[in-house]
Amino acid sequence: MFDLVITGGTVVTAADTFRADIGISEGRIAALGLGLEGADRIDATGKLVLPGGIEAHCHIAQESATGGMTSDDYTSGSISAAFGGNSCFVPFAAQHRGMGVTETLDLYDSRAQGASVIDYGYHLIVADPTEKVLAEELPAAFERGVTSFKVFMTYDLMKIDDKQFLDILTVAKTHGALTMVHAENSGMIAWMTERLMAGGHTAPRYHAPSHPALAESEAMNRAISLAKLVDAPLLIVHVSTPEGAALVSQARLEGAKIFGETCSQYLFLTRDDLDRPGMEGAKFMCSPPLRDVATQEALWRHLQAGTFSLFSSDHAPYRYDETGKLSNGPDATFKQIANGMPGIGVRLPLLFSEGVNKGRITLQQFAALSATNAARLYGLERKGSIAVGMDADIAIWDPEETRIVSAENQHDNMDYSAFEGWEVTGWPVVTLSRGQRVIADGKLVAEPGHGQYVHRARPDLTGHPGHRAPELDPATNFGAEIAP
Amino acid sequence: MFDLVITGGTVVTAADTFRADIGISEGRIAALGLGLEGADRIDATGKLVLPGGIEAHCHIAQESATGGMTSDDYTSGSISAAFGGNSCFVPFAAQHRGMGVTETLDLYDSRAQGASVIDYGYHLIVADPTEKVLAEELPAAFERGVTSFKVFMTYDLMKIDDKQFLDILTVAKTHGALTMVHAENSGMIAWMTERLMAGGHTAPRYHAPSHPALAESEAMNRAISLAKLVDAPLLIVHVSTPEGAALVSQARLEGAKIFGETCSQYLFLTRDDLDRPGMEGAKFMCSPPLRDVATQEALWRHLQAGTFSLFSSDHAPYRYDETGKLSNGPDATFKQIANGMPGIGVRLPLLFSEGVNKGRITLQQFAALSATNAARLYGLERKGSIAVGMDADIAIWDPEETRIVSAENQHDNMDYSAFEGWEVTGWPVVTLSRGQRVIADGKLVAEPGHGQYVHRARPDLTGHPGHRAPELDPATNFGAEIAP
Amino acid sequence: MFDLVITGGTVVTAADTFRADIGISEGRIAALGLGLEGADRIDATGKLVLPGGIEAHCHIAQESATGGMTSDDYTSGSISAAFGGNSCFVPFAAQHRGMGVTETLDLYDSRAQGASVIDYGYHLIVADPTEKVLAEELPAAFERGVTSFKVFMTYDLMKIDDKQFLDILTVAKTHGALTMVHAENSGMIAWMTERLMAGGHTAPRYHAPSHPALAESEAMNRAISLAKLVDAPLLIVHVSTPEGAALVSQARLEGAKIFGETCSQYLFLTRDDLDRPGMEGAKFMCSPPLRDVATQEALWRHLQAGTFSLFSSDHAPYRYDETGKLSNGPDATFKQIANGMPGIGVRLPLLFSEGVNKGRITLQQFAALSATNAARLYGLERKGSIAVGMDADIAIWDPEETRIVSAENQHDNMDYSAFEGWEVTGWPVVTLSRGQRVIADGKLVAEPGHGQYVHRARPDLTGHPGHRAPELDPATNFGAEIAP
Amino acid sequence: MFDLVITGGTVVTAADTFRADIGISEGRIAALGLGLEGADRIDATGKLVLPGGIEAHCHIAQESATGGMTSDDYTSGSISAAFGGNSCFVPFAAQHRGMGVTETLDLYDSRAQGASVIDYGYHLIVADPTEKVLAEELPAAFERGVTSFKVFMTYDLMKIDDKQFLDILTVAKTHGALTMVHAENSGMIAWMTERLMAGGHTAPRYHAPSHPALAESEAMNRAISLAKLVDAPLLIVHVSTPEGAALVSQARLEGAKIFGETCSQYLFLTRDDLDRPGMEGAKFMCSPPLRDVATQEALWRHLQAGTFSLFSSDHAPYRYDETGKLSNGPDATFKQIANGMPGIGVRLPLLFSEGVNKGRITLQQFAALSATNAARLYGLERKGSIAVGMDADIAIWDPEETRIVSAENQHDNMDYSAFEGWEVTGWPVVTLSRGQRVIADGKLVAEPGHGQYVHRARPDLTGHPGHRAPELDPATNFGAEIAP
Repeated sequence: MFDLVITGGTVVTAADTFRADIGISEGRIAALGLGLEGADRIDATGKLVLPGGIEAHCHIAQESATGGMTSDDYTSGSISAAFGGNSCFVPFAAQHRGMGVTETLDLYDSRAQGASVIDYGYHLIVADPTEKVLAEELPAAFERGVTSFKVFMTYDLMKIDDKQFLDILTVAKTHGALTMVHAENSGMIAWMTERLMAGGHTAPRYHAPSHPALAESEAMNRAISLAKLVDAPLLIVHVSTPEGAALVSQARLEGAKIFGETCSQYLFLTRDDLDRPGMEGAKFMCSPPLRDVATQEALWRHLQAGTFSLFSSDHAPYRYDETGKLSNGPDATFKQIANGMPGIGVRLPLLFSEGVNKGRITLQQFAALSATNAARLYGLERKGSIAVGMDADIAIWDPEETRIVSAENQHDNMDYSAFEGWEVTGWPVVTLSRGQRVIADGKLVAEPGHGQYVHRARPDLTGHPGHRAPELDPATNFGAEIAP
Repeated sequence: MFDLVITGGTVVTAADTFRADIGISEGRIAALGLGLEGADRIDATGKLVLPGGIEAHCHIAQESATGGMTSDDYTSGSISAAFGGNSCFVPFAAQHRGMGVTETLDLYDSRAQGASVIDYGYHLIVADPTEKVLAEELPAAFERGVTSFKVFMTYDLMKIDDKQFLDILTVAKTHGALTMVHAENSGMIAWMTERLMAGGHTAPRYHAPSHPALAESEAMNRAISLAKLVDAPLLIVHVSTPEGAALVSQARLEGAKIFGETCSQYLFLTRDDLDRPGMEGAKFMCSPPLRDVATQEALWRHLQAGTFSLFSSDHAPYRYDETGKLSNGPDATFKQIANGMPGIGVRLPLLFSEGVNKGRITLQQFAALSATNAARLYGLERKGSIAVGMDADIAIWDPEETRIVSAENQHDNMDYSAFEGWEVTGWPVVTLSRGQRVIADGKLVAEPGHGQYVHRARPDLTGHPGHRAPELDPATNFGAEIAP
Repeated sequence: MFDLVITGGTVVTAADTFRADIGISEGRIAALGLGLEGADRIDATGKLVLPGGIEAHCHIAQESATGGMTSDDYTSGSISAAFGGNSCFVPFAAQHRGMGVTETLDLYDSRAQGASVIDYGYHLIVADPTEKVLAEELPAAFERGVTSFKVFMTYDLMKIDDKQFLDILTVAKTHGALTMVHAENSGMIAWMTERLMAGGHTAPRYHAPSHPALAESEAMNRAISLAKLVDAPLLIVHVSTPEGAALVSQARLEGAKIFGETCSQYLFLTRDDLDRPGMEGAKFMCSPPLRDVATQEALWRHLQAGTFSLFSSDHAPYRYDETGKLSNGPDATFKQIANGMPGIGVRLPLLFSEGVNKGRITLQQFAALSATNAARLYGLERKGSIAVGMDADIAIWDPEETRIVSAENQHDNMDYSAFEGWEVTGWPVVTLSRGQRVIADGKLVAEPGHGQYVHRARPDLTGHPGHRAPELDPATNFGAEIAP
Repeated sequence: MFDLVITGGTVVTAADTFRADIGISEGRIAALGLGLEGADRIDATGKLVLPGGIEAHCHIAQESATGGMTSDDYTSGSISAAFGGNSCFVPFAAQHRGMGVTETLDLYDSRAQGASVIDYGYHLIVADPTEKVLAEELPAAFERGVTSFKVFMTYDLMKIDDKQFLDILTVAKTHGALTMVHAENSGMIAWMTERLMAGGHTAPRYHAPSHPALAESEAMNRAISLAKLVDAPLLIVHVSTPEGAALVSQARLEGAKIFGETCSQYLFLTRDDLDRPGMEGAKFMCSPPLRDVATQEALWRHLQAGTFSLFSSDHAPYRYDETGKLSNGPDATFKQIANGMPGIGVRLPLLFSEGVNKGRITLQQFAALSATNAARLYGLERKGSIAVGMDADIAIWDPEETRIVSAENQHDNMDYSAFEGWEVTGWPVVTLSRGQRVIADGKLVAEPGHGQYVHRARPDLTGHPGHRAPELDPATNFGAEIAP
């Protein structure tokens, strides 16, 4: 008898859809079959049983570039993620200049420990690649299970130059870590911003022209060129332009290990949202900025064709009040407004409703984009799929449930949703983390602290789809009770 | 207790690699777990347990264009396939001008029934798209479970013109069938051949220049343009050029439903093989012809990047004697020599050894290219993966076994192997078809007639990776015995 | 003292703009200088003095594909051309199946001799490339000064197949002739037309969808592939799509000798014109058909960037009455309506007004597109530029003159203008042919028969801009009188 | 009677080749005709009469980045240029950080005045774009006739950042100046150099890997992106990679005003030359570095197709002794060796011999690349062509003369030639500057100081071929004496 069985559901993986019960023991998937029995049982009849989502791009308990702090900490952030069908998330641990990497990771540990309801890891943001960081601290971070390093090509406080970028790519490659990059041309942004400011164009709507599409495609081409030079893998996060997506696709055909991510907002919103009256456009400010409908269509095509390995929320929660977006007052210029928008709880429902239901992507692609690809690229060996031996990180979806997205039904610590009013069909109704219910019957049933730090393994950077589970000890037999 | 259990192996699907036993009942996969027990048992310790291969491009019991017959019938062809790790194959049923489609399928049924050791279907070759064929017989073929139609742009006896091609694409689209195409420019080939002949250049080596790379890329572009015009899905078989591969990739990024296949010989051989002394080059004549090393490298990159959904053998067995290659005598011109080469038994070992072992593709890609993608594209709903409810079509591989490829250790009815002398590591040691051993301990243990005709379903032409299993009747419970 | 001097004008060539008088003797340009004197004088003060235009794509005294004859013969056609600033034109001599080439040329000679007011040559249309045509008649045509051969990939009565195309390309290459091609996919057009007809969509507006853009880009790619195969030069006439233009540009960068032409109507009109009430859309039917505004913009960019060597009118004059467009009655389907529209007299004013005046092209490009490039590509050695030794084929333009285009002010034998109502600034006020006034003071002053047949030389197919004049006999000294 | 006539020659312009005498008066071309007579006469029978070359990329009397001075000053540099068929050159005036622009131009005036035998101008190198420079000094430079500004993306002492680049592009665009750029990624070069140095790879041969092709293509893409952002024209100098050339071509097809230049050494030499024994490779060090044979072929194709508007020498003369290449001693690392090589005297003979004689380019292209395009792009209104009213800057070439290139027959102040031993056919035998012989009968016949500063006009940045001469005062009649 298993600890828990999920019965009657239709199981979905990145490869298959099939009807099976799932037997769970000791927090892991022990069996897939029919007629399984367990001490506990979830009836998934009529439901889809999916790998628990992995939110791989979110900002939690992190200082913003314009001062202040994200509104979500590891508790509210993880709860919101779990309500959105996620069993794991990987926020950033941001080094600031003058800080050490170990110091940074310790700081984030202090923020995360005991706080999260789902498992978590960190991507390390490297803003100060000193000799010591390169030679000692990055390897130490990797040993500590932080196997992805992110760099910025823009933002004065964070950006590195091309030579530093090459250093980091090389150290990452040596240790098997994955380098991630926010690719926008800093000079273009600064130049445009200065002129817009000088012309009195300070409203939120001018955030879009201050970050032109050329700033992204230029920086992406540069980043890819740097990665090619040292033959290092590189992931471009939040790609927002057709030109950028084409660069990822072309680089992969040439054999380079270049990966791409796009985010909810670039598929579902446009810069028209920045043009709302008064300061309301501030709610829709993120970098890169929202684009247009033609861009959405092109990004969908690239998502369908496999250009993007990842689809994330880039949840960066700054409230529409004086603690967040309006921290520099109601007359602030767009330059003084924190970039980012919330979305951790609605990423997957949006993708399901607009992607799967509208026939743009298959259930297999949904599983891959929900979880499997992130697990592979970020070294989450026991997560991201439904297979014997994996952590029982599972999301049960009701494909028929229709909801209207609202700040009200999100569980983050935000006072607005960028997707307010969207009608979506398909909603996660149960989220399991290592076999424990986190969300059930629409309620949070886990305690902060249930979520544990995940020591991540070396990413699978083969550039290929699919996921390889960790080798099991041959003696492992947690599924012994499956025998009659 | 299951009918059969496979224990101790490492299971590989297009999504995952994990250690699990497999329980099989009533010919289908009933459970994945640990410690499973069955009436019968295969110990797969140290082995990989993969979806049984699906050979989706092979010529069996088919007349050649130069007269004569393939040396393999459904018995020898299926046995050779099974030894090569395949649990299913889909040869062609070739309509000739003046024949009806139903007549054609009946003829092939008479050739296949009772003969095969593994399950089979047919792709229908349409050479004479009369009004009746378009209006009545193709729909009837689809109803009969023949859900893929192939056309030729070259070969005088088979080729259709662009207008006919549009007719077939349209009918196929209407019914949900997949159109396949041999894309080479007929006029270029005829023109080159005439000049080569006129110049006395008749040896096998001149087969290559008679079929220039431009003939393929031109015809592929034309075929893709025709498919775009009517927004119909299209699979280009045996792509042999970088230019052709790039056309597939580009078309998909533009949103067209274009699929590509490449074959063993284009990855592993070159036209230098055509240049062997005397008539020996005839062994390596196929169309499109073998190319060069730069082409191999480019095709590998496209295989890695996902341009090709299928990797096949294009097994077209004509013996190197008077029944086959030399049917027009030892002084025949290249024009009089049957095109094609054997390979049905060595496709998967070559791909494993050169692809997986050399790090070019992952095990997941191997599973996808072995079986999963073909199952999806050709509507083989219960085949192509290892998941509960699927047919227990399974290949067990010893990843350590090293063999030297030779006509001797192939089991087709051929007197030569195009891959003679290749050392490969990784070999299928057991092949199951619907839970029955076909190959075990290096021996054939099934009888001709075990293999059954598969009524294929509507192909999954979403253009996306992944495979959706058939809906199970909720009452199905062949795995009931899994309960304690 | 020269026979004639043109004084005070600004001379424009494909290389330069400069103020100079021109001295003309014996029909040729004898000197460029200042203060020249002659027996006769034209005051060009305030005017531009340009190479006389060469209209290199027009249908004159030619049978249409739907029966009937062009409304213009060599007299009305040449007069209209001359009023439009042309000193030379090269209509087609169309072989029909069963006719010999020599027979064809003799026939057109009988139509042209004594009829034209400007010099002329023919492009030979090859519709029946028999052995004799290939081996004897094409070389004979070349010897006769017909050094360009045109083929059709569509139109049932004219089209050749790919193998015949290769034959013609090869013969042309051997003799140094230029092959020209009307590139549209015949099968696509026939298939679309059948379906449109079957659906009752027979009005002129359906001509556009019956000739989709894909039909052009497919056929162009095929034609270019055929030319590459035999490394022969090829000119694609009347390119009407961005995709087609890109193919020309790409092929040239790869080193192939591929040239492109576009026509007035594709830059200035759209398919909206086909949608006029009743049958009036018939006036705007041509093949390839008119496209859209985005296409116009792309074609302009390619014209600017040098993709197109030629800009022509494709003047194909069929009156809007029972002798032309309506020859099959007022209820004719679009399939029964002659393709083509007039424009020989307005090609250059439109290009000047929309191109030069609006800053899209320079005067140098205007001279090149008017005349110089055509002279080079079609072997008109003594025409196409203003330089010592050249034929004094000259057009004097008033860059300030504004006119409204109308059938009234065209001098062809047509009852409508496709550009009715267009306001253009810049108009040719004098046209000289070999130093003789053809048009002066807005009047025709030459007699039919002034124009002579030009024995054309081997085209300059280097693929490069610029024009090389014929070698002069060192003894030539028609400019001796320049000496004081 | 003219001051001087050139008789019997074949005149070549960017548009035409024709036999004509040239009449010259008051330093300008007064007439083209036959039988002209003058007070002085040059017999050009059997010769080509070409526009005098314009060497638009050379370093004269300029400090090197590694210390020291070019070996050529305005006297030796101009003499060498004149012997190589040039009538004009445009070296650099290099601002260094802390210097003003006016100060810089004054300094170079002091170096050039009275020294040159041919006319000259300067491109201004902008290394310190302060507010004052941008607001006052660049406009002042433009007023002074310095209408092209060059920036560096690499070299620590010269490089500007992206934001400064945008500033300069914008100021240049406002005034109608042309921005030029040395495009290589500084970070890549520094990173590679550090690693090569650390590994002891200090010999000249390591200069090539220290400047990888990716450094050029990345920087070119960035530069083009910046220019697109502000819709400013931009010329990329010394393009040395196929990838870079393709970027220029693509940008132009998209409508951007991007121009490209390549140089002799990239067409004729390879990095194998860097691999000569000892320090001799230092002679072949330039940046970007020499590449390989495949690159040469691609650059030729782009030269033929019109991608490159300019073909220059990038003459940067540092002697192979302690004053130049070896200024840091015989054990210097490649980092300490001055970049550049001589070639001002051999640019045109190499292009003629390898380009025109081998059929790669036409005489028209030779004229355009020699002089016409540079005149247009750099605002040299009265130079660059042979037409009435132009300066009589003329080069007379003997197309049959064969020479072996050697440091001996160059007239610069160098002790080596990078093209030592090359056999070339076609050599300039007379060079005229404003109607005065500078080189005649193989001898220098002009005095330093003959050459004058050219106040350059606003460049013609239409992006189109051809050249528009300055408007003449209607009263001008320097050719009056042409009248009988």
